Amino acid sequence: MLEELKQTVYEANMALPANNLVTLTWGNVSQIDRDKGVFAIKPSGVDYNALKPEDIVIVDLDGHVVEGNLNPSSDTPTHAFLYRHWPDIGGIVHTHSKWAVAFAQAGMAVPAAGTTHADTFYGDVPVADKLTKEEVEGAYELNTGKSIARVFDRDHIDPMAIPGVLTNDHGPFTWGENAMAAVHNAIVLDVVSEMAYHTMTLDTATDVHVPQYLLDKHYFRKHGKNAYYGQVQS
Amino acid sequence: MLEELKQTVYEANMALPANNLVTLTWGNVSQIDRDKGVFAIKPSGVDYNALKPEDIVIVDLDGHVVEGNLNPSSDTPTHAFLYRHWPDIGGIVHTHSKWAVAFAQAGMAVPAAGTTHADTFYGDVPVADKLTKEEVEGAYELNTGKSIARVFDRDHIDPMAIPGVLTNDHGPFTWGENAMAAVHNAIVLDVVSEMAYHTMTLDTATDVHVPQYLLDKHYFRKHGKNAYYGQVQS
Amino acid sequence: MLEELKQTVYEANMALPANNLVTLTWGNVSQIDRDKGVFAIKPSGVDYNALKPEDIVIVDLDGHVVEGNLNPSSDTPTHAFLYRHWPDIGGIVHTHSKWAVAFAQAGMAVPAAGTTHADTFYGDVPVADKLTKEEVEGAYELNTGKSIARVFDRDHIDPMAIPGVLTNDHGPFTWGENAMAAVHNAIVLDVVSEMAYHTMTLDTATDVHVPQYLLDKHYFRKHGKNAYYGQVQS
Amino acid sequence: MLEELKQTVYEANMALPANNLVTLTWGNVSQIDRDKGVFAIKPSGVDYNALKPEDIVIVDLDGHVVEGNLNPSSDTPTHAFLYRHWPDIGGIVHTHSKWAVAFAQAGMAVPAAGTTHADTFYGDVPVADKLTKEEVEGAYELNTGKSIARVFDRDHIDPMAIPGVLTNDHGPFTWGENAMAAVHNAIVLDVVSEMAYHTMTLDTATDVHVPQYLLDKHYFRKHGKNAYYGQVQS
Repeated sequence: MLEELKQTVYEANMALPANNLVTLTWGNVSQIDRDKGVFAIKPSGVDYNALKPEDIVIVDLDGHVVEGNLNPSSDTPTHAFLYRHWPDIGGIVHTHSKWAVAFAQAGMAVPAAGTTHADTFYGDVPVADKLTKEEVEGAYELNTGKSIARVFDRDHIDPMAIPGVLTNDHGPFTWGENAMAAVHNAIVLDVVSEMAYHTMTLDTATDVHVPQYLLDKHYFRKHGKNAYYGQVQS
Repeated sequence: MLEELKQTVYEANMALPANNLVTLTWGNVSQIDRDKGVFAIKPSGVDYNALKPEDIVIVDLDGHVVEGNLNPSSDTPTHAFLYRHWPDIGGIVHTHSKWAVAFAQAGMAVPAAGTTHADTFYGDVPVADKLTKEEVEGAYELNTGKSIARVFDRDHIDPMAIPGVLTNDHGPFTWGENAMAAVHNAIVLDVVSEMAYHTMTLDTATDVHVPQYLLDKHYFRKHGKNAYYGQVQS
Repeated sequence: MLEELKQTVYEANMALPANNLVTLTWGNVSQIDRDKGVFAIKPSGVDYNALKPEDIVIVDLDGHVVEGNLNPSSDTPTHAFLYRHWPDIGGIVHTHSKWAVAFAQAGMAVPAAGTTHADTFYGDVPVADKLTKEEVEGAYELNTGKSIARVFDRDHIDPMAIPGVLTNDHGPFTWGENAMAAVHNAIVLDVVSEMAYHTMTLDTATDVHVPQYLLDKHYFRKHGKNAYYGQVQS
Repeated sequence: MLEELKQTVYEANMALPANNLVTLTWGNVSQIDRDKGVFAIKPSGVDYNALKPEDIVIVDLDGHVVEGNLNPSSDTPTHAFLYRHWPDIGGIVHTHSKWAVAFAQAGMAVPAAGTTHADTFYGDVPVADKLTKEEVEGAYELNTGKSIARVFDRDHIDPMAIPGVLTNDHGPFTWGENAMAAVHNAIVLDVVSEMAYHTMTLDTATDVHVPQYLLDKHYFRKHGKNAYYGQVQS
């Protein structure tokens, strides 16, 4: 049974480089078995090319290793906290995907700027508070999880309706009913961040139009009875 | 005959991921058989990797399924309306391609900023009006089609000369004489959106030139009688 | 002998999609045989996937077809003019590569913003004058060639030292001692355009630094005697 | 033994195109054998597709060729100086990777804008001083190395804690305990430059939010009991 969980989590981790969400060894995916009270997670710092299903580490909800020879992801306490805080989530993804990180570094929520966003996230994807010096120097990864929960609790956001967050100065976490659903949400979060960036930075200050006679020339060079582009003349 | 239509529409749908126009299951292509009064369209929410020609759904011009075991695209009423409204179009594509979406989310037409644009689109690619609350809460996909027709009718735009539009806050629709021509126009719309974005955001406020002596050094390190880069010395 | 020229020009044309410089059928490469007074060029509107060496068209310096069953590129008169005007050039490339087009559409030269530029182009890559209505409605492609020559002649630019130009509102032409050298210059022009765009648009208005305690945490989580990321602990 | 060093340096050089850090022949990697007082480096101007392990050149710490039939990289004097100046570094990489070059051309340090940066670089990646006319016209590549050392010495930066720099108007150098570690740092430097660029240019001036009723429509078209997107209805 745990072999199946390891295989599932292995495949979900491998979906990160396949979808261009990771550089080098960055990023990790986990999935929980609520009945057994354990979750499976990527080992820390292992190259995706070298990763094997049997490398996946099984930990309990306090983040202690139950099965596996490798150290679990250093972000394991964040995953464990979120599984404890939100009983409905089944899988978690953390990446440093480029466009979501740009917003995280700016300390900005990803705005619900279009229907692509609305199809997956029912509102802005929030940015967690910056951690204080004490939170960073203390149980950093646990406090990262708490900072995520805090923004959802304070602003009454349903984590199943907005299954993702930006940790401030850091990067995105997403979740879902299982690991692959969380990967799906990580893919969407990065692409809607990219779309929002370009929408936010569009600048209409300059008129960029070609003159009408050039529009005529190029359009009718290719279309209509006087076209002379290509092999088939009309 | 319908098998051939399904095969054609299957291939046109598969051209979307092949040209980097879609993420996940997003996007759909249809083609009409005007004699039979039916069109073929991608099934809703099916992964491109799993899509087969026999999955393509045949619907009539009211959008009712005539043949097929799967639900047609949820955007089927938009396609059906456009086929009814414009008797000359033979194929329709809807995508969430990134650069066109950036303009759609900004509520901006894609300006005819160069000859690349003019080769395909005879003028700005317009943005449809935002739908009202009533239009969204009512027959949303039908009203999306109506919002497209409205901007073309109101502004006297020939849909065969400008075979594409941005639905406001949403994304691009393109069309053509058949499905593959509509895919072609979807490819062009995204790349001219990308080019226009960069033209619109170029900023000459800062002088970025290297000093002349550095220009001299690097150019003549590689060119002319004193070059010393590479294996063949002159 | 002409078979060898066709093969060379075929390979140079195929290098355009291989280097991500073209969309669809856009772009064309030619190479001249000065002794025979002819040049070989891509046929008009042919898909790169379908292009074969025997499709390459041989034309004379007036642009008349000497050998070949297909129409030559619609840009043939531009190539022919440049070969007549500049006796030292041996190959010419025209593309609609995205970053160079962004500058062409803005009517801006690509500034010599760094040594990457200086390694290939001995100064700004100039932008040709906008064509007048008469020039566009007349012998358009010939006049495009003349607009290129005009900026080089007027500003005393050596076309062998700056082997490229932006045609206004349109896109880049590059050249070189042969077709493949011209392709090389097309590759460089697009990448230095991309680099220049980002240099020109960098904005330091906002302080984006992380606090020192977060820098400490993340750096020392991975480095030094207290590191706990990865599998090998020091 | 030197064959092993050549093989290592060959593989590290090939990792540059594999990670999209180079265009054409640009970039070079070296690794030193401190005991023998020699280092291995890429030959100048050789195409990566044609590069073979036996092409790698062995030079001494003055940059004189000890073994090999090809000219070493024209940047060899920069590598040699850095190996002499910093006895702890074992490998050096120089690239013209696009995002790092954008900052180098702007004469800006890459700011420590997030934890992705902090995981590898303990502070801003500095930009070296512009070389003077005399430095450029003299021993240019040696002076490039000196300009790197100068900024680290003057600002008391530990080169092992910040294993990279931007040479002004030029591009990045990175280093590490060996060649592959230096390649790793080159990959990270480019991606954190890309992330920082987007963070620095995010613009919140415009409200890009969709109206609530459109958010409702799209979210609930796909989620919950009234969803009608896809094949499985709840």
